[in-house]
Amino acid sequence: MPELRKDPIIGRWVIISTERGRRPSEFFPEKIKTRDGFCPLCEGNEDKTPPEVFAIRENSSQPNSPGWKLRVVPNKFPALRVEGTLNREGEGLYDKMNGVGAHEVVIETPKHDETLSTLPIDEVIKVLTAYRERISALTRDPRVRYVLVFKNHGADAGASLEHSHSQIIALPVVPKRVIEEIDGARAYYQYKDRCVFCDIIRQEMGHKARIIEENRVAIALAPFASRFPFETWILPKNHNAYFHYTQEAQFEDVASLLSDSLRRIDSTLPRSPYNFMLHTAPSNEKDEDFYHWHIEIIPKLTKVAGFEWGTGFYINPTPPEEAAKYLREAQPRGNRG
Amino acid sequence: MPELRKDPIIGRWVIISTERGRRPSEFFPEKIKTRDGFCPLCEGNEDKTPPEVFAIRENSSQPNSPGWKLRVVPNKFPALRVEGTLNREGEGLYDKMNGVGAHEVVIETPKHDETLSTLPIDEVIKVLTAYRERISALTRDPRVRYVLVFKNHGADAGASLEHSHSQIIALPVVPKRVIEEIDGARAYYQYKDRCVFCDIIRQEMGHKARIIEENRVAIALAPFASRFPFETWILPKNHNAYFHYTQEAQFEDVASLLSDSLRRIDSTLPRSPYNFMLHTAPSNEKDEDFYHWHIEIIPKLTKVAGFEWGTGFYINPTPPEEAAKYLREAQPRGNRG
Repeated sequence: MPELRKDPIIGRWVIISTERGRRPSEFFPEKIKTRDGFCPLCEGNEDKTPPEVFAIRENSSQPNSPGWKLRVVPNKFPALRVEGTLNREGEGLYDKMNGVGAHEVVIETPKHDETLSTLPIDEVIKVLTAYRERISALTRDPRVRYVLVFKNHGADAGASLEHSHSQIIALPVVPKRVIEEIDGARAYYQYKDRCVFCDIIRQEMGHKARIIEENRVAIALAPFASRFPFETWILPKNHNAYFHYTQEAQFEDVASLLSDSLRRIDSTLPRSPYNFMLHTAPSNEKDEDFYHWHIEIIPKLTKVAGFEWGTGFYINPTPPEEAAKYLREAQPRGNRG
Repeated sequence: MPELRKDPIIGRWVIISTERGRRPSEFFPEKIKTRDGFCPLCEGNEDKTPPEVFAIRENSSQPNSPGWKLRVVPNKFPALRVEGTLNREGEGLYDKMNGVGAHEVVIETPKHDETLSTLPIDEVIKVLTAYRERISALTRDPRVRYVLVFKNHGADAGASLEHSHSQIIALPVVPKRVIEEIDGARAYYQYKDRCVFCDIIRQEMGHKARIIEENRVAIALAPFASRFPFETWILPKNHNAYFHYTQEAQFEDVASLLSDSLRRIDSTLPRSPYNFMLHTAPSNEKDEDFYHWHIEIIPKLTKVAGFEWGTGFYINPTPPEEAAKYLREAQPRGNRG
């Protein structure tokens, strides 16, 4: 069972893989699985993954067999385990608990050669639908306090499989980074009686310089204090704390903006690896008034080094106003239908 | 002038290089300067760096000429500028200030082929002496709120020059990561009337499993909630908030433990890149009672990806107890005198 351990000074949680501890010789450069090798996520290899927990299928095909458009399966090497109780305990001044939670893989397409940015909008809507369904389902587990959806694209962004996929991790604690956002947004709300994210959107729409694209439902912008070059945030224009409460009718606009943003990045910075993270409000908190779901896309172009680790500061060599201009003027690339 | 910008949600500061903004085409893979090329940090090339602000010289050699053992020079491409006023201002709901501060390079040895881990202890003591002198000097600038010493070793850890060096950045605000440590340590002190770092040292010395090495003055251990495989912390055994108040007589033991720790890592994980950060208390705060200076060494073996960015959690595949055992049993490698 993996172990969750809390740093006694700053309260940061760490997942320690106690079972399959990696020895020094196992830290050779990590290679990504290429198209030449066998791919467990391709159509026809359904028996090489754990049984699916969600799928979008056509022609009434059977679970765990070909004929799907999208599958969600448990991660074969999960960071957290579904079985068991949390068993919170102390060890002197330290705190720990069992690594209980869920770790799932969203296989975004049956085709090995597609990526999220080349998929037609209909397929991107299916990906968002899968996120919504799994967030809703995992949130019902009383042990789960937070569900994070994220994507690692490219080996340098931490992907270990080439086939286009995203990941979902359900955690037994609300993570530090989300608590920081909630605390900050709550403090702003207490002072101003307004959502800080809504205020950011309003100010950016007046100022224009950091807007990349917008449509009826959502907006893509380069945040004022971007940590990384070409960092892009996607937010719904109307206040909404919970991603999984988004109305079906709004998914097309959100999918279109996500697709365009990724294709603008790919057009501006060809083949650049990236991560994205979907931040939504924790399910059992009362944060509806001041939290606002959003997606943070961070292209992997610079290295995080001693200064960033030591301070939590970031050095960004590309002003977000310039990044937004490049992305705004870019022709979204790819064969999206 | 670089600009310091504050994220309006979580209060994270970012340094935006407004002057030499990097364009998309400039993000080709970054290469490290190798021994075949010209090295501006080597002895004889003193005119290729800005004039030294500190040096340890023998035989009364002249400043900015050969004959030195160690030099500290301003960074030629500084993240922050020494000249100017902070000029704090708002921009709607955003906050920013001028990027005033200092960015210096500690050239640890005149010899290109040495690294900090192969230097004799006498030379490592000189490096610590340079850290102390520069922290003391920079702290006297009333605009400076925090001084961070850090080291990036190897291209994958963010080093852009091969010649062994560390860096010093003086900041006009206390960084988020240090505030978190101080807040955590203060809360612990208010509850227990003891320093949390002192308590950690006491508990680890009783438990033994995570201790790597200790001597009269200092201790090296794998922290209970290590973020990274083989993460190593060095702390003085006796309570001391400020690194630059360390007594001269104690430097030999600290230098010896730092050298041993780096050589143990190099022996266990040959040629692995690493970062280290020296955390000391901010100069103008009253944190003497509960803060405790320390060095955090993080070998660069795993990739930080979407999960870590989205949560602030870390997944560590090597339990610190196992890491400590490997490092404890390792033969410190290198030609240290």
